[in-house]
Parts: sequence; C-alpha cells; structure tokens
Amino acid sequence: MSFTELWESLLPVGRDAATGGYRRFAWTEEDAACRGWFIRAAAERKLRSHPDRNGNLWAWWDQPRTASGPRGSGAGAVVTGSHLDSVPDGGAFDGPLGVVSGFAALDLLRARGFAPARPIAVAAFCEEEGARFGVACLGSRLLAGAIDPRAARALRDGDGVTFAEAMAAAGYDPGRIGPDDGLLGGISAFVELHIEQGRGLEDLGAPVGIAEAIWPHGRWRLDFTGRADHAGTTKLADRSDPVLPFAATVISARQAAANHRALATFGKVTALPGAANAICASVSAWLDARAPTRALLDATVAEILVMAERASHKHRVRLRERQESFTPTVEFDARLRNRLAATLDTSGPDSPAVPVLATGAGHDAGVLAARVPTAMLFVRNPSGVSHSPAEHAEAADCEAGVTALADVLADLAGTGAAPPRRTQGGGGW
Amino acid sequence: MSFTELWESLLPVGRDAATGGYRRFAWTEEDAACRGWFIRAAAERKLRSHPDRNGNLWAWWDQPRTASGPRGSGAGAVVTGSHLDSVPDGGAFDGPLGVVSGFAALDLLRARGFAPARPIAVAAFCEEEGARFGVACLGSRLLAGAIDPRAARALRDGDGVTFAEAMAAAGYDPGRIGPDDGLLGGISAFVELHIEQGRGLEDLGAPVGIAEAIWPHGRWRLDFTGRADHAGTTKLADRSDPVLPFAATVISARQAAANHRALATFGKVTALPGAANAICASVSAWLDARAPTRALLDATVAEILVMAERASHKHRVRLRERQESFTPTVEFDARLRNRLAATLDTSGPDSPAVPVLATGAGHDAGVLAARVPTAMLFVRNPSGVSHSPAEHAEAADCEAGVTALADVLADLAGTGAAPPRRTQGGGGW
Repeated sequence: MSFTELWESLLPVGRDAATGGYRRFAWTEEDAACRGWFIRAAAERKLRSHPDRNGNLWAWWDQPRTASGPRGSGAGAVVTGSHLDSVPDGGAFDGPLGVVSGFAALDLLRARGFAPARPIAVAAFCEEEGARFGVACLGSRLLAGAIDPRAARALRDGDGVTFAEAMAAAGYDPGRIGPDDGLLGGISAFVELHIEQGRGLEDLGAPVGIAEAIWPHGRWRLDFTGRADHAGTTKLADRSDPVLPFAATVISARQAAANHRALATFGKVTALPGAANAICASVSAWLDARAPTRALLDATVAEILVMAERASHKHRVRLRERQESFTPTVEFDARLRNRLAATLDTSGPDSPAVPVLATGAGHDAGVLAARVPTAMLFVRNPSGVSHSPAEHAEAADCEAGVTALADVLADLAGTGAAPPRRTQGGGGW
Repeated sequence: MSFTELWESLLPVGRDAATGGYRRFAWTEEDAACRGWFIRAAAERKLRSHPDRNGNLWAWWDQPRTASGPRGSGAGAVVTGSHLDSVPDGGAFDGPLGVVSGFAALDLLRARGFAPARPIAVAAFCEEEGARFGVACLGSRLLAGAIDPRAARALRDGDGVTFAEAMAAAGYDPGRIGPDDGLLGGISAFVELHIEQGRGLEDLGAPVGIAEAIWPHGRWRLDFTGRADHAGTTKLADRSDPVLPFAATVISARQAAANHRALATFGKVTALPGAANAICASVSAWLDARAPTRALLDATVAEILVMAERASHKHRVRLRERQESFTPTVEFDARLRNRLAATLDTSGPDSPAVPVLATGAGHDAGVLAARVPTAMLFVRNPSGVSHSPAEHAEAADCEAGVTALADVLADLAGTGAAPPRRTQGGGGW
C-alpha cells in the first residue's frame, strides 16, 4: 500500500462536512475509528499491535534475529510515531502525518529488503492536543510519569465527564494508567515526524528539517468576574463589565508579545451568561504564551498579567489568574540530532545542510525527551498554517519525509543494541 | 392570599441552585411550570384564564354589570401584566413582579369591595426577553402585528429548534400565531408594572414612578472572520486573529457610548473553534446600543462600526455587520400618563409629585403602545441591578407598587366604556 492510499484511508475519519476540519477527540467515536484504522494498518503489515496502559497504541516490527528476550522490550527498540487526535476543526496533518509516515517508512524499509537489528515500533499517543481534557500530551505525560495518574483520571471535559469515565466507556481500564518504565526502558530512541507549524522550511526552500528545541510555553487561565446587569438601563459608571478588562488584556498581550519576540494568544474565551441584552457576569479566557527563552516568556506573561490586573481594577472587576500548564525549554538530544543530520545530509559539499529549527509547538517528543533520546523531523508546510482546515503539505514533501524517516530508522535500527544505559533507560544505539 | 405568598409560590420555578439566577425560557419545562402557576393563580381567584393564539396568557375579571356583550372583549377592558420568562441567570423581579402585582392588585380591589365597570385582565406575555429565539417581546409583537408570523415560526434557538417546533412540542398550535385585532380591539388601556432597571427612583427617594418614554435601541451582530492557526508557531505578523479587532471594538464601544450619553454593551460573544492552543477562526459578537435620542444612537453606532472596520482591516480580518433588531423611541400615551400621575399624586402640595422617568429597557408595553393607550409603573430597585440574580426590590416597595396599580386600575375600570375609538381600537376610558 502506498503512502497516498494509507493517508487517504484515514482522511474521512472525524472530518466535519461543513468546515473540512477535524474533530478527533480522545475516547470519542471518532477516536475509536482512528484506533481501528491504526490496528488495521498494523495487521495489514503483520505488525504486533497493542494499547499500552495509558491508551497509547503501539505497532511492533519485532526484531527477528534475537527471539530470546521479551518481544519488543529490553531490546533497545527504535520508535517513531505521533498522534491521531486533533484540535477542534484542526487540519489533517498535525499528528496523523507522523503515524502514517511511520507505517509508510516501514513499508519502504521492507521494500528495500532491510533487516532490522533492533525492534522498530510505530506509536500513536492519546490526547496529544488536550482538546477534550485540557492537558496537552496527556498520553505521553502519563507514560513518562510527567503527570499524576489520579490528577489525570479526574480531568473533566466540557460536559463534566472525567478522563477516567471516558476511558472506561471506551473499554479501557483507567485504574492502570501511569508511568510505564518497562515500556520506556526498552526504547533506545524516539523520532517523531511532524508537519512544520510555521514557514521556516518554506523560507529555506527545504522539504524536511530537524528540530533543535521546543520553546518554553504555558497556559494561563484568567477569570474576570463582574456583575450581570441590564444592558439597557445600567449607567456606564455603575457597570462592572468583565468584557472590558478582557478586551484591554487582549490588546496588551499582543503588545507584550511583540515587545519580547514572543507569542501570546487568546484562543478560548467564555463570556457568561451570554445574553445580548445583559452585561456579562464573567469572562474566562485562556492565554497561550511562548517565547524563545524562559526570561522572555516570563517577561511577556508578567507584562500581560499586570495589564490585566490594572484594567480589572479600573472596571471594578475581580481577576483570578491561574497557571494551568507550563513546559520549560526542551532541547532535543544533541547526539541523536547530529546523527539524523549526518544521515540526511547526502548532498554535496556545496549544498546546504538539512535545516535545524526551533519551534513553539509542544509535542509528545518534547515530553518523551525527558526519558529517552528523542529527535523530530519536520515536513514543509508551504503556508505555515496549522490547527486549521487550511493546514497542508505537498505530496512530494510528504514522500520526502517518509524517505528521510526510513533512512533515519534504518540507521538507528541497523545495528544491534548495546547494553541498556542506566541514565536513559533504553539501550544505546 | 397575600402578595408575599403569591410571590413566594413562583420563586422556586426555574431557579438555578448554583447561581440563584433564573432560566425560564419560552416553551421549556420551566416555562410550562410558570404557565401552570399562572393558571392556578387565576383559578384561585375565579378569573377566567386562557392562552391567546400567540401563547400569551390572560386571566379575566369579567365585568359583571353588562352580561349582554361578549365576555372580556369589545368592552374597553383595562389590562395589566408583564412576562414570566427570564434572561439566562436573570433575577426574580424582571417580568414576574408585574404579573404577581396584577393578581395582588385584583385581590386588593376585591378586598376594598370595588365593583369594576369594565373587564380587568392580567396578562403574561411570551418570550419577552428573546432569550431563547433572539427576538425580544415576541409574544406582544405577534399580538400587535409587529412581526411576520412566518418569520417568527422560523426563528431558531441555539440548538436549531424553531419557534414553531418548540411551540408545537409545548402543545400549542404555531399555525395560528399572528395579529389578534379582536383581542386588542377590546382593550382600552394597558398598564405594565415593572421593577426599575436603574437607580432613578432610588436617587429620587420614591418607591414608585411612571414611565415617560423608552429610548430607541437596537442590536447589531458583528462577525469577525480571521484564520485559525497554531498559537505556538504562527508569527504575529502572519496572523489573522479575529479576537484582536473584537477587543479593539469593545474598547471603542465604551468610548463612543461615553461620548454620546449612550449605552453600548457586548453581552454575547462566541469565539470559535475555541481551542486554547489555536488562533480563533471567527468571533461573533452582539452589540446592544441605546441612547436618549435617535441622533445620539445613530452617532454612537456609526462610531463603533467605523472603529470595528478599521481594526479588522488592520488585522486582515473580514467583518460583516448586520442589524438584528431596532426599536425607535416609544413615547407612552401622554393622556394616560397624566391620568396615572393624577391618581397617584395623593400627597400634599408641598410633596414631590410621582416621578416620571425615561428608560433604556424595552418592554411589552413599548410594543403594545403602537396599538393601545399604554403606560408603565416602575418599582424602586435600590441597587439598580437587573438581568442578574442580584436584582432586588424591597417588600414594602412591592406593596406600594401593588397599591399604586390597584389605584390606577380602579380609576381606569371604575367608569363604563365609551363607544370604541376608531384610531386605537379599544374603547376610551
């Protein structure tokens, strides 16, 4: 099966007919359809597939030479993969491109007659976008021990359903979620392929690049509480309208981000009770902020919160601020990154090397980097648009991504495992 | 039954335990419970109750002296009433105070041994707030012929249910809605009692006042359409974020309203798709604007829309503006107003007269004023807060309102009907 056939077999799942965008949220019907697609893709390739205890899916090309050890673990496995879930009305590529490319890379390696010296796996992580339960990379965080399983079980979606309830309704046991050192300990390297979510490669004229680092980033929830009142009778001076300090904060955030080479976004806003003829009682707004360095990020957020407080005070509105998540700078493994660069740099001495780029986007690779040598490949995104139905990559660039991933997997899995390393858990390559 | 008992029997219906606010929306279970309460209140008083073809409820104290004419119509009836529905999380008084006070005023007249020379009715109008189907005063508009019945039937709530579907599900026939000149033609005066929705009476130290006029007011829908994109990777310069021009418009609206002695409010805002890590694709916002004169209102709205267009252009966001409703200035019937003032002005020559106030709030009385001599009584609201669970009136002021309403009804219904007037439809008093 070609990359295109495999890609197109996933495309209809969870696509909204009106917007063309995707709604693939954890533990929904659409999610179950994505899981079914993954299991079929593995079965068609005679890969051994199974969910792990956190609901992430794995498909193993077990290493045939050493049948003695436990299959797929303790053998310095090389893992690729990404996620199948989406943001609301997201694009087709963010996540799925990495999973489809993983399967396609295995097809390519087999077509080349490659015989792996280590197990290779394709993984699909659960709830990467955090679109349903609010915590991004939830599946990889649980796997890596980066979130308390009790806290994860108690997370609620917009309808009040807990992660545990939704997981159980989908037929998985939420009692078993949590860190899985046995699984992680058998992995020597994780390489995630992902569509680029900016125009870095487009500007450099390169189809494929390598990730250097992920910017530090976080999410803050701002609750502005005013007082509901009649829109037609309450004098301006008597109002306590939370929409006003929210609006001032939005404008301050843009200015603060521009001042500090950062990004600041309000993408989720809830204004209640939401009657056109009543002043709002409250506005809840979520600030997403990212910057090249921790210092720049801290300065950006501090400036925004000071302005939010000042505007709230002016309008007699109560403000509560809470950091909902924070991820420090992730520097990917330099040794692994250099090895990818060397593998992919097949051009002559006068050609430019494969680009190495930083990104503001969080990824499962960023979470796993704390436990396993981890790298990322980016595929060119001509418009830079992501988290949108307009997200797109050209077929030729996707094929170039598959080839690059196959080359990297062949390099990493082509030689046998060294004894397991104590610090990283996995066997060195 | 005392005013307090009657009032308290309605209080629990549709009250949200968490906020203490009311959610009584047309054709819901809560609405059915309010209707049941109305029918019981009428039955306890031996009033003849019935819904009209538009779902408004009527309870008639039929005039006993002339049994010859058709009951309750063609007899120059005097009608009081208001509405039982609420905005989302509204207060207990806006609407229900007028209905409860109507029944209580009848109780008081009977206790006084008053024998009406004309029929008196208490009415409760349907969907006054427009909270479910978006058009305020829908029941009185239909009755008065101020909205096309086909357009009304096709109105949809937030879940896509039409007014016709909801009405039919509640057991009423939507095929019969529309102007009812027979019913209106039998009415010589309509007097609505309502809690004041500002602090005018509080500032004047008066428990009860009379309405002079309703400010011209309208509702505009602004749709800002940008482009969804990744919050963590899209450069500020590449963004088309609709939240930014919306925020700028909110701030402009406040400034424009202050410039023109007007009111401007954004109480309903929808930002889609609503992911914390994605730039919004669109923001829809509803502007409610009111001013003492048409010229001031026009200037206010024009200034806001110019600023919205400018900010949208700056951020490469598409803006669509649409006027959803508009109500010109309503001047209440001067003759009826003077008669109310004379009736209520029982104090000595040195005491202040009963205050006469303009208001920014729309009411069924404002709609009916186009067809029937109409007046309004306001009851003091110490905080001025309305459309909020904090809305409140003191019991003594409510009793003063009942007494004033009873005095007005006694005056208007105490003398027999003159021959029907051609211009107003009803018989003169």
